[in-house]
Amino acid sequence: MKTYKDIYAQVEQEIAHIAYTQQPEELYKPIEYIMSLGGKRLRPVLTLMACNMFGGESQKAIKAALAIEMFHNFTLVHDDIMDNADIRRGHPTVHIKWNQTIAILSGDLMMIKATDLLCETETNDLRTLISVFNKTAAEVCEGQQWDMNFETQNNVTEQDYLKMITLKTAVLLGCALKVGSLIGGANTNDANHLYEFGKNIGIAFQLQDDILDSFGEGDKVGKKIGGDIAANKKTILLIEALNSATGDDKDELYYWLGAKSEEKIEAVLNLYAKYKVRDKAEQLKEQYLQLAFEHLKQVSIPTENTLLLKQTAIDLMERMS
Amino acid sequence: MKTYKDIYAQVEQEIAHIAYTQQPEELYKPIEYIMSLGGKRLRPVLTLMACNMFGGESQKAIKAALAIEMFHNFTLVHDDIMDNADIRRGHPTVHIKWNQTIAILSGDLMMIKATDLLCETETNDLRTLISVFNKTAAEVCEGQQWDMNFETQNNVTEQDYLKMITLKTAVLLGCALKVGSLIGGANTNDANHLYEFGKNIGIAFQLQDDILDSFGEGDKVGKKIGGDIAANKKTILLIEALNSATGDDKDELYYWLGAKSEEKIEAVLNLYAKYKVRDKAEQLKEQYLQLAFEHLKQVSIPTENTLLLKQTAIDLMERMS
Repeated sequence: MKTYKDIYAQVEQEIAHIAYTQQPEELYKPIEYIMSLGGKRLRPVLTLMACNMFGGESQKAIKAALAIEMFHNFTLVHDDIMDNADIRRGHPTVHIKWNQTIAILSGDLMMIKATDLLCETETNDLRTLISVFNKTAAEVCEGQQWDMNFETQNNVTEQDYLKMITLKTAVLLGCALKVGSLIGGANTNDANHLYEFGKNIGIAFQLQDDILDSFGEGDKVGKKIGGDIAANKKTILLIEALNSATGDDKDELYYWLGAKSEEKIEAVLNLYAKYKVRDKAEQLKEQYLQLAFEHLKQVSIPTENTLLLKQTAIDLMERMS
Repeated sequence: MKTYKDIYAQVEQEIAHIAYTQQPEELYKPIEYIMSLGGKRLRPVLTLMACNMFGGESQKAIKAALAIEMFHNFTLVHDDIMDNADIRRGHPTVHIKWNQTIAILSGDLMMIKATDLLCETETNDLRTLISVFNKTAAEVCEGQQWDMNFETQNNVTEQDYLKMITLKTAVLLGCALKVGSLIGGANTNDANHLYEFGKNIGIAFQLQDDILDSFGEGDKVGKKIGGDIAANKKTILLIEALNSATGDDKDELYYWLGAKSEEKIEAVLNLYAKYKVRDKAEQLKEQYLQLAFEHLKQVSIPTENTLLLKQTAIDLMERMS
């Protein structure tokens, strides 16, 4: 059986062979650049894995896998402008390396190329593939908007937050699996269970990401602990704390949200400890993990064919921690 | 027979009835806003007209027509950011009325919605429609990039310029007609002739636009004469002048390109007169008009069925002058 590594290698090779129009190069160089920066390539790997699960050859789903990776990278290019981010995967972001107008326009082109790639898939039901993909694409934009709205909003509920991360990051994992499974020959029911698996795993990943930013071991996580706190990022932890704290503690939390001192991270972590927000976040994460695995069980193929996907999810979750 | 007005009215009505998701409203309100600002609705009208020419009911092509109008408005929203434009059709641009991040993101969503609308078309060959549409969409992005490149480039040739306006504005008129005709039942050959008609008429429109900005009657054109000169816009006139002028005249032209004085417009117009750049531009425009009409003649349907389209092109050209 193929491993994650095998499939990852195939994805990397195909990405390196995407043919870009050469002119105007100000527009195509940034696309090549961002696509070559690597990363886990989780989404396209999931698409191929799902296709394989139903007996489909990876080759059948490769264009769709590239489409989803291209779309994902398009969102990164535009999000980095909106978030004023200078660095992506250890390299300058497109709007820093080139400029903002080039980042807008080459992002637009990536979105167009993503649909192009999807349409290169040999299928009798292109309409369904595009419909799943487009619905997800719109949701990802909505998620980004909610995320930006939350930045200036202090009454974000747990439910609001879960909806936002579902749209912004989780549905694309669901989409990657659903599209791959449909190309591999899955029926609608199985494709939908895989979608739900991907979506719920995606929510769990994001919750884990939030938890580790405050409670992980710096070296393992690969970034400084407390970065989200320093940046006042609305994580599940901050939202739980804002919703649980009362009286002076609530005032203190608001004070730190407006402060930039060095004691901020420790002070907020103390409040997180007092209100046990980590436990709450871990519980939520567990719920979504279990929900994901239940959906995977419902897929009507031999359990052994689902093992690689299950193990991939577990490995990713552990590698993060 | 239907008139432009009839078809325009249908387009306006359908645009008013597009159902937008309501949440988050920061994302959907700007889309409703820009789509409601009006304009000639030339592209969707052309799509319906082309469908009608082959005996197809307008209703068959309405979603595709809306897709093309949505795409066109998406390019306006993003171009306005890149061009720092404050006003669009007499109203504040999206990034001014809301902000830049909202303009980027709602533009992205419009691109996605455009593909969605196109996919709602009842057709046996969705792949071809999307392929024509996506090819054009990519070209429009390329055209915008060339246009931005030319801003800082003093050796733009006539050929460069024609390529730029072809991509940035003309191919979308060709695409609107091709898509409409295919939905109406045209064969590939006829669809391609209509595409070439639209593309060449589009080039002629842009050349006319350039000419009128310097030589039109201010009241009729609806904007101040010489705006392009004041803004150092690389029009066909400026390019012909830069390429024809020699010695002191060339130096003078470069001097004015760097100047902001009130005498600038008159001085540049004098140089335009000396080098007969208007005549050159008018000749070019005539060539593209004739080319367009030759392609229209090649379409294998009764001449009477092509009259509305021909008259529409002539009317538009005259209404501009």
